[in-house]
Amino acid sequence: MTAHPLRLPTGPVDLAALPTDAKPGFDGKKSDGKAALCGLGDELADLQERLWAEGRATGSRRRVLLVLQGMDTSGKGGTLRHTVGLVDPQGVRITSFKAPTKEELSHDFLWRIRRAVPDPGYLGVFDRSHYEDVLIARVNELASLEEIDRRYDAINAFEQELVDDGTVVLKCMLHLSKDEQRNRLLARLDNPEKHWKYEPGDIDARARWDDYQEAYALALERTNTEHAPWYVVPSDRKWFRNLAVGQLLLAALRGMDLRWPAADFDVEAERARLLASDAST
Amino acid sequence: MTAHPLRLPTGPVDLAALPTDAKPGFDGKKSDGKAALCGLGDELADLQERLWAEGRATGSRRRVLLVLQGMDTSGKGGTLRHTVGLVDPQGVRITSFKAPTKEELSHDFLWRIRRAVPDPGYLGVFDRSHYEDVLIARVNELASLEEIDRRYDAINAFEQELVDDGTVVLKCMLHLSKDEQRNRLLARLDNPEKHWKYEPGDIDARARWDDYQEAYALALERTNTEHAPWYVVPSDRKWFRNLAVGQLLLAALRGMDLRWPAADFDVEAERARLLASDAST
Repeated sequence: MTAHPLRLPTGPVDLAALPTDAKPGFDGKKSDGKAALCGLGDELADLQERLWAEGRATGSRRRVLLVLQGMDTSGKGGTLRHTVGLVDPQGVRITSFKAPTKEELSHDFLWRIRRAVPDPGYLGVFDRSHYEDVLIARVNELASLEEIDRRYDAINAFEQELVDDGTVVLKCMLHLSKDEQRNRLLARLDNPEKHWKYEPGDIDARARWDDYQEAYALALERTNTEHAPWYVVPSDRKWFRNLAVGQLLLAALRGMDLRWPAADFDVEAERARLLASDAST
Repeated sequence: MTAHPLRLPTGPVDLAALPTDAKPGFDGKKSDGKAALCGLGDELADLQERLWAEGRATGSRRRVLLVLQGMDTSGKGGTLRHTVGLVDPQGVRITSFKAPTKEELSHDFLWRIRRAVPDPGYLGVFDRSHYEDVLIARVNELASLEEIDRRYDAINAFEQELVDDGTVVLKCMLHLSKDEQRNRLLARLDNPEKHWKYEPGDIDARARWDDYQEAYALALERTNTEHAPWYVVPSDRKWFRNLAVGQLLLAALRGMDLRWPAADFDVEAERARLLASDAST
């Protein structure tokens, strides 16, 4: 997947230079994009079922972890619904991380993350993640700079562990413009059915927009590893964001060369047993 | 929902007298049934999102727990994919119960069940459940009859607790004929892509078919309470099973009178704050 247009190059990150409204790798408009996402559905569902089958029927520890990070309204929830929603929910494990509880705060920041790592065979999704601990933690000075610095390395080591244990780690930063965030927050305020999605605290985070962008840039740079690279997904267009994450997920699953597990029993003997069991009743 | 045709009447249960291939409450064929399920999708998704919103934005503890029980191949997995798959996976929590682990066995049978109860706002689904502890446990004599007897009451008390805590408990027995099970097991043996779903142990359970039906009948009779009634879903037709569970789920959600949470902030003031935050940058 290293040649994917959304793959973040290694080195210093300048988020302002990365477009939020581009459609890299896709030549079409909204209706084409929606159709293209729909067109991925069958293969996505097929490969996810193979992964699930492998996890159930074999001792394989392989799994996929999709990490979704982005500013408020960047569309983590929409991606869950429209893209992750294309596969069998039985094999999906979504964890939405909120502000840590008192108990969680009494442990290392990765404690609650480790507990949410998906079991073999699963497509696990983190809606926000351990990256909050180097993003909001940096902006709001919830930890010292030394501690934040330690966390980048701890994250890289943790993700290396996951990869060594059979996990494909797919990290997507949903890259939104400040203008588009305003539009989406206004839309939430304008629609009583969306008031529940709005929190006054969102404006406080928005007021620190530049600080967040800087925290993201630093985090992306420090954790953009070979074993768990970052993809920056232009997210001003919801349909492109959904399609892009779908394509990344599909590429990740294709890269696993997933096969249907072979029978660990004698098929003909079982057929005979089955038919015999009927004859005797 | 007490008038629903699939609602099991109270009193002794004769499963043999309940059809597995009927289509109660639906006058149509396969293509109509698939279209009808599709037609439920929008309202199901809308109501589930309201439930999710309520759980996120208010202190409500309301939630739904869908319990799926049935013999092997009765379609618990298919129901998850086709019916539960109609709603946003973010608000769904599926737990598939397998044979209890050593740790689970060292606790009361409800211990692992309690840990899987969905949080407020969720649609939780149990693929198999605490009922295994009065089904396979009875057939395979994994517990004494006295213990099984105690468990019926413990289950009723547990489900009453759930209801008192704001949970709508929707229990569906996917009712399959022995003939249709043979067809489905043969189909799994005939298709290498489905071998992973087949387990030789399935034949052993099939050999005890009548014992299982009896255990089901006793369990249904003893736990068919007003607060958590049983629905027996004819499941020889996959499309009808999926539609029927969809209709039951929809009725359950409709019965909750779910409203979008009201704003707990001053909408106009927030709009002004949002626009002001932009002007200053």
